[in-house]
Amino acid sequence: MSRARLEAFSDGVIAVAITLLALNLAVEGPGHGPLIDQLGHRWPVFVAYVVSFFTVGIIWVNHHALVQDLARVDRTVLFINLGLLLFVVAIPFGTALMASYLTEGGADSKLAMALYCVILEGMAIGFGALFAWSLGDGRRHHPIPSDLQRSAWLRFTIGGLIYILAIGAAFLSPMLALGIVGATAVYYIFERGAAGAT
Amino acid sequence: MSRARLEAFSDGVIAVAITLLALNLAVEGPGHGPLIDQLGHRWPVFVAYVVSFFTVGIIWVNHHALVQDLARVDRTVLFINLGLLLFVVAIPFGTALMASYLTEGGADSKLAMALYCVILEGMAIGFGALFAWSLGDGRRHHPIPSDLQRSAWLRFTIGGLIYILAIGAAFLSPMLALGIVGATAVYYIFERGAAGAT
Amino acid sequence: MSRARLEAFSDGVIAVAITLLALNLAVEGPGHGPLIDQLGHRWPVFVAYVVSFFTVGIIWVNHHALVQDLARVDRTVLFINLGLLLFVVAIPFGTALMASYLTEGGADSKLAMALYCVILEGMAIGFGALFAWSLGDGRRHHPIPSDLQRSAWLRFTIGGLIYILAIGAAFLSPMLALGIVGATAVYYIFERGAAGAT
Amino acid sequence: MSRARLEAFSDGVIAVAITLLALNLAVEGPGHGPLIDQLGHRWPVFVAYVVSFFTVGIIWVNHHALVQDLARVDRTVLFINLGLLLFVVAIPFGTALMASYLTEGGADSKLAMALYCVILEGMAIGFGALFAWSLGDGRRHHPIPSDLQRSAWLRFTIGGLIYILAIGAAFLSPMLALGIVGATAVYYIFERGAAGAT
Repeated sequence: MSRARLEAFSDGVIAVAITLLALNLAVEGPGHGPLIDQLGHRWPVFVAYVVSFFTVGIIWVNHHALVQDLARVDRTVLFINLGLLLFVVAIPFGTALMASYLTEGGADSKLAMALYCVILEGMAIGFGALFAWSLGDGRRHHPIPSDLQRSAWLRFTIGGLIYILAIGAAFLSPMLALGIVGATAVYYIFERGAAGAT
Repeated sequence: MSRARLEAFSDGVIAVAITLLALNLAVEGPGHGPLIDQLGHRWPVFVAYVVSFFTVGIIWVNHHALVQDLARVDRTVLFINLGLLLFVVAIPFGTALMASYLTEGGADSKLAMALYCVILEGMAIGFGALFAWSLGDGRRHHPIPSDLQRSAWLRFTIGGLIYILAIGAAFLSPMLALGIVGATAVYYIFERGAAGAT
Repeated sequence: MSRARLEAFSDGVIAVAITLLALNLAVEGPGHGPLIDQLGHRWPVFVAYVVSFFTVGIIWVNHHALVQDLARVDRTVLFINLGLLLFVVAIPFGTALMASYLTEGGADSKLAMALYCVILEGMAIGFGALFAWSLGDGRRHHPIPSDLQRSAWLRFTIGGLIYILAIGAAFLSPMLALGIVGATAVYYIFERGAAGAT
Repeated sequence: MSRARLEAFSDGVIAVAITLLALNLAVEGPGHGPLIDQLGHRWPVFVAYVVSFFTVGIIWVNHHALVQDLARVDRTVLFINLGLLLFVVAIPFGTALMASYLTEGGADSKLAMALYCVILEGMAIGFGALFAWSLGDGRRHHPIPSDLQRSAWLRFTIGGLIYILAIGAAFLSPMLALGIVGATAVYYIFERGAAGAT
């Protein structure tokens, strides 16, 4: 089986998912009060768009880096990849849900944010599974030295733990959880250290 | 004609279709009762999303495996492929329909589920036609030995029969039909035997 | 400039457009009368979906055949291609419009069908322009012999004239116009003669 | 890292964004007055569709020209590219917003148009950043001679300044701003001079 179609299909799915994020930007339009108020009232939608856009973008960058070194592709890795995409595709839903409830307050606000973070956690676990698979014998052109493996695992574990932390934080304060997810995106954009390992 | 664009176009169509499945996840939002109740009431939507996501994903994996061995591509196979995609593209519609009626009960519930299974049957027939075409002289780099052909046909026939069974089951119990479709997806994910033949 | 990205971008746009056709299949859902009546009432939507799906599919097949023989790609052909895609992308809109008015009768029904045919005419002209460009010196790997050029032009002219005929027919009977468009799709699927020329 | 997936992902995102522009073409449908009036009332939607379609199309052509000469791709350029796509993906939203308020008049009309131009300005800046990155040592197969660099920068600066001018013009007259954006698209389609430099 060829790596090219795994990449092409994943690129397509991630490209559609990242573009669908923008469907949620719509305002109600003429006849629903001054536009400036409509936009002001919907600020969480714009913040959520930027946070989710870069979160999905980072996964694409990491997916790109991981997959391009694969020496072979089998049915197992195709299905692991589908498991990852199941959560990526759900991110526009999670983003819209979280943004629409962010300023509502109360239990719904917390639950919506927690669900958003659960989807991100699912994505992190899916990506970790893809990475774990890639460590098997003969699966990479450039096997990762064990010390880099350790630092790569550390990064994945931290990513996975951060989203679990965010799920917990959502029940204290949805804003805090959104701050954690946003900060994680900023961290991964500027983080370079172990990039070669993934 | 080149196999590359057949793959690229099919990947694009399947990627968009699988991503559109998530459009159906949306809840009604603030002002329509507690979020937990909205989510609970819409559980069929989430189950349907996972079942259809993997059903489409499996078709993509099998399509990938079949097409990459094609030695040539002509107008006939492009149109057979379009026939397959006609049903793949209709899956988000069928999924949304089936999920929205699943817990309604009565004749509508059965009809909606039957229609969903009819779309899947159309997809199975489309894929079978693509496979049948590929058996012609000089159409594959690695012609399939006749014993593997027999087992591959058996698998396709079973797949096609299962969805016909599911259409029938839909009129007894929509839940039973959904269970059959879900079990079929699980079976194809873990089935390995004749993978090399498709 | 490379042909590969012209193909990749066109494949992407056509793949999304063909998939968006299915968004129009949705019924109103529970609480809007028996499902069988909803589906029966919306039969034009299903017919329109199949007709437009194959119409777009045919354009993709022809685009694929034409572009793969291009020896070079410049800014001019990229913009001609964008002009073609401008109409392809509008087809889901035209299809939804036409289907929703088909059984309304009256002037609106005729206007909606005429608009649908105008969009198809725009697509036909765009494709003709792409073909005309390809005839220039050094633009094809395999220059088309002048007798095949004549037969290819004849086919394009006929295609363009048929859609003009359909625009006219729309004002007599929208059903007749839809029949013409559907028959054209069937004709192009089974037509083989001058396929090598495009 | 490979240029191919940068291209494939960008092609996918731009293809989806350009296709989503057409979602805004929908009219209200039967029961909302004569179709001709619905269409006439919504003329800004059709003008906006054409202007945005070619604006996005031009960015794709320029992106294509720039990226195909890159000698290497690193995480930095992937994230600069994501920054560009963040604005491209927002264009369907900006287009729908601007079109729905264009004929409303008043402050909302001006604000909606200004927001549309801000999104285009963001896109122009993102593209300028991508170009600036490409000038670094060893990043292009064919380094751009300094005099062509100057003319290329001039073009980008003019592009960036024109959209700033359009933001200002939006507060005087939204129609004037739309005229500026449309004229800019026409200019870039026919402009050839420094095409080799980007």
